[in-house]
Amino acid sequence: MNVTERLSTLRREMERMGIDIYIVPSSDYHQSEYVGGYFKSREYITGFTGSAGTAVITGEKAGLWTDGRYFIQAEEELASVPVTLYRSGEPDTDTICQFLEKELPSGGVIGFDGRTVGVNEGKRYARIADERSGRIECHTDLIGLIWDDRPDLPNSPVFSLGVEYTGETAASKLARVRAKMEEAGADVHLLSSLDDIAWLLNIRGRDIAYCPLVLSYLLIYEGHAELFARQEKFSADIIRQLENEHICLRPYENIYSAVGSLPEGARLLLDPDRVNYTLYQSIPGGVEVVEKENPEVLMKCIKNDTEIANIREAHLKDAVAHTRFMRWLKTSVQSSGQEMGGSRKQILKDPDNPAAAVTEISAAAKLEEFRAQQDGYLMASFAPISAFAEHGAIVHYSATKESDAVLSSGRMLLTDTGGHYWEGSTDITRTVALGEVTLREKEDFTLVARAMLHLMNAVFLHGCSGANLDCIAREIFWKERVNFNHGTGHGVGYLLNVHEPPVSFKWKEGEAPAPVLEKNMIITDEPGIYIEDSHGVRLENELLVCMDEKNIYGQFMHFEPLTFVPLDLDAILPEKMTKEERDMLNAYHHSVYEKVSPFLDEEERAWLSACTRPI
Amino acid sequence: MNVTERLSTLRREMERMGIDIYIVPSSDYHQSEYVGGYFKSREYITGFTGSAGTAVITGEKAGLWTDGRYFIQAEEELASVPVTLYRSGEPDTDTICQFLEKELPSGGVIGFDGRTVGVNEGKRYARIADERSGRIECHTDLIGLIWDDRPDLPNSPVFSLGVEYTGETAASKLARVRAKMEEAGADVHLLSSLDDIAWLLNIRGRDIAYCPLVLSYLLIYEGHAELFARQEKFSADIIRQLENEHICLRPYENIYSAVGSLPEGARLLLDPDRVNYTLYQSIPGGVEVVEKENPEVLMKCIKNDTEIANIREAHLKDAVAHTRFMRWLKTSVQSSGQEMGGSRKQILKDPDNPAAAVTEISAAAKLEEFRAQQDGYLMASFAPISAFAEHGAIVHYSATKESDAVLSSGRMLLTDTGGHYWEGSTDITRTVALGEVTLREKEDFTLVARAMLHLMNAVFLHGCSGANLDCIAREIFWKERVNFNHGTGHGVGYLLNVHEPPVSFKWKEGEAPAPVLEKNMIITDEPGIYIEDSHGVRLENELLVCMDEKNIYGQFMHFEPLTFVPLDLDAILPEKMTKEERDMLNAYHHSVYEKVSPFLDEEERAWLSACTRPI
Repeated sequence: MNVTERLSTLRREMERMGIDIYIVPSSDYHQSEYVGGYFKSREYITGFTGSAGTAVITGEKAGLWTDGRYFIQAEEELASVPVTLYRSGEPDTDTICQFLEKELPSGGVIGFDGRTVGVNEGKRYARIADERSGRIECHTDLIGLIWDDRPDLPNSPVFSLGVEYTGETAASKLARVRAKMEEAGADVHLLSSLDDIAWLLNIRGRDIAYCPLVLSYLLIYEGHAELFARQEKFSADIIRQLENEHICLRPYENIYSAVGSLPEGARLLLDPDRVNYTLYQSIPGGVEVVEKENPEVLMKCIKNDTEIANIREAHLKDAVAHTRFMRWLKTSVQSSGQEMGGSRKQILKDPDNPAAAVTEISAAAKLEEFRAQQDGYLMASFAPISAFAEHGAIVHYSATKESDAVLSSGRMLLTDTGGHYWEGSTDITRTVALGEVTLREKEDFTLVARAMLHLMNAVFLHGCSGANLDCIAREIFWKERVNFNHGTGHGVGYLLNVHEPPVSFKWKEGEAPAPVLEKNMIITDEPGIYIEDSHGVRLENELLVCMDEKNIYGQFMHFEPLTFVPLDLDAILPEKMTKEERDMLNAYHHSVYEKVSPFLDEEERAWLSACTRPI
Repeated sequence: MNVTERLSTLRREMERMGIDIYIVPSSDYHQSEYVGGYFKSREYITGFTGSAGTAVITGEKAGLWTDGRYFIQAEEELASVPVTLYRSGEPDTDTICQFLEKELPSGGVIGFDGRTVGVNEGKRYARIADERSGRIECHTDLIGLIWDDRPDLPNSPVFSLGVEYTGETAASKLARVRAKMEEAGADVHLLSSLDDIAWLLNIRGRDIAYCPLVLSYLLIYEGHAELFARQEKFSADIIRQLENEHICLRPYENIYSAVGSLPEGARLLLDPDRVNYTLYQSIPGGVEVVEKENPEVLMKCIKNDTEIANIREAHLKDAVAHTRFMRWLKTSVQSSGQEMGGSRKQILKDPDNPAAAVTEISAAAKLEEFRAQQDGYLMASFAPISAFAEHGAIVHYSATKESDAVLSSGRMLLTDTGGHYWEGSTDITRTVALGEVTLREKEDFTLVARAMLHLMNAVFLHGCSGANLDCIAREIFWKERVNFNHGTGHGVGYLLNVHEPPVSFKWKEGEAPAPVLEKNMIITDEPGIYIEDSHGVRLENELLVCMDEKNIYGQFMHFEPLTFVPLDLDAILPEKMTKEERDMLNAYHHSVYEKVSPFLDEEERAWLSACTRPI
């Protein structure tokens, strides 16, 4: 079936069930950012492959809501299907709720699979239905009904992380969480967010693309806990480890009945932003719900010293791999020889395999190859972005077989990639000039580099959040009357989700305010500029929050870069930088050389030395 | 009676009434920032003269809570009285509520005059009493009972502002407010904040020092309104004007009974942050309270074009007066001749009256004299700060007969002053070097100037609040590991309160978040550095929020300075500024000369030209 046929089939099912509007979010049952194939219902019904977005289907209309990162991609992917793009956050775009209010007939029914919808989202839908004297139907997975070749639920083996990686045993973490439960007056705590569970129990899996997580739920009581997950994922060893902490395994699907049979008078701590609507609705009336952010959220944001030491190591490995990749790219430009028509544009050739033209996908594969050469590398930490020339303007571009561009000289390649190592996860973006690029591209590159460097070198008083500091990067952009439609940075998990909320740099406060930046938090610094149909530049370093001087004014803080990969000087216009900015760049490049050169051979070292020369 | 005796008398009254802890805030019945003499109960009972602070008295203890602006002043003023200073906002200081929780015995009574306490504050006290199975006693003004020579309630005549000043009639404003009432589903609206009432009715008075306001309350109904104020303040003309808008006068004290007899089913719009606790408690149970920020608050922050044109004129007058004052100060340094001991320090002499030494108070009087020479000048817009040398480190220093320092060369004078003109209100701070000052003072001056200029030259996307932008000024400080303990800026009223919330630059979000900066808002830009026992530097310009380019990224905004007075180049170290910063200073000084010189005589013009030379 193509998208048009799928929509017709869905509408027949909607009619059969008496549903007027059906909502299909991108989420799995755990509000995960990335989801396994089983959960790609929204992609199935619209054809839009981006990671964020919600489809809403009525008898006549079909809409897809997505955010600024995906506008260009969604436009392209929806061009040939009967689905309208709604640009979330644009002033003239109705929100999903406004759309529902306009479209729902009196007495109408809004349908969705409550397991894929957040608590507050579900409540909003219910309120809108209520206002129209209608109702919601939230126990039906209509996409599941019509999706013939739906992939299976993920079922990868679980592995455990030793204390040499985690720096803290599960027993110690559980004790800290139970102290927080007591503080909140709760005697049972429901966890549904996969990264919180994985962090707490020091277990990992591969149930979700790019996220080493285990599909599971956890109920923590005062003296024991129940882990809801498919038993066959677990080795006898890990089951024994869990039993040592008084954690017993239960079938994955049983979480709903377990929550439904919590005893009268129980006080249940849960995070309404991290529990699905159906699970929330399963709580019996006699249970007192204590709604709070999961205590695990802030605990795992603040890395311990073992984790920090490991993460530094992971970043050095990543820097070596990425430096080799940059050198390979630059060498590919030099090896390129084929004339294209009368222009001076040259197709890039892999110096190791001169017969093959380099493409976006083959370049990403090469970078993956360099990472895989490093000890302790596990897998990519998110879907790699490898975007050539005008593809760089698509913030979350993902090259497909159809779009895969051949790289040629005179343009730029933007890669936003990362790796999971046993020692932690990385996330890095570099934009590289393939030969001589235009003045405009260099101006934009220089602007982005300046913004990134200013934020990286910020000094601030303890108490600041990323909402306070975001303007340090943005102001550089705003002075030129440009902006970028995404946050300036996000937290990064340790062998967990590479986007780890709520740590963030953002100037618009959303529902979850950015927390105070504490020592040992990790945050990315990634401004970008996107010129539609022309080019894009993004540069991203990871930063570690560090203590600075304490004096009568308070505790000062600063950032330390964790990422040590050169910014391409071929795309820098030194005359567009102040002396202070050139000093910041030179100091950073000096550290890059100091940190990375010991791991390189002589030729590579010479190359890196030139790439990190003072300007 | 001295403070010790007053405290003993108060404690006897507390015992008689069975009150364990008595709270004395700084406020009048209208949550005004400045208050008339009648309302200075907190000053009466502690001796602390600062404008902000709360006294809490138990049988044994007496504490004064005040904020960073007043730490040094409060320390000095409380040194000889049995009152302990609690530094609000310092990490180790108990809040008032924490203090109450520790000190209130089981079954104890917390007393306060509910008319001087905000709604949420009163609720917090009631909750604490409740938790201790105690109660509050909020209908007794114990200070009034013991204060023999208490000044009378203020009773100045009311005057009205024509549409040539306000740009909008009271009728038009009332219509806008009634539309907001309807939007909020309210049929009656209680106003107790004096600036909201004065703005709405285009009336002014002199009931409060420095604030041209009328002690009053207002109840707005759908077709009419009741103004509660002393009748003898009003001329027949103004009464007629009010009657034309169907507003009738009622006795000031009758507001409590009027609110108490609102009919069952009335829907009352009020702002819990701008109504006192007793008034709130007077609302009958059958009245539905719609709690919202007063719609007048945002309306009056956004000035109309008539107001803006007037305000520009007021600032030019103020700039002429202030420029003359700076010149007079600098000439006083040159006229000073008397040697003090063996040092090269010279006492400043008024060139117009060479027998008189210049002091902090006489300098402030001179500035007031220059302002008074300007057409349309009414009065000072707040208590002038004139702080010499180490007094400059006291953020809200107010010279007294005892502290009044004689100015001498080699140090700096900080003045933070402003005027009310018919055309609007001003607020300006300048720090002036009296002769050659130390390198450290120049370094600090240059730092403050850089921070002020960076914020003044900020460009931002519409949607930013002062909470987003504050870091643009602070980052300059933080890079040097220094900070200042006050907001970077505040809104300014039009012939109303010179501190007009909620517009502000602040990095720590308080209870009232800083609003989005809209076109035609006015905000001050006033970073400062305070070196205890040594010196202080603050520089303050007022800024107008303006539209900038609108493009695909959104609506950009920038600031336009309203204040045009030189920054003292004698205290600037050009080598400590980047080229961009020197350009900003030179551009500002160029405008100062362009705007102000047409109003000066030839000699003054030559002086100003030198003072605004490019560096």
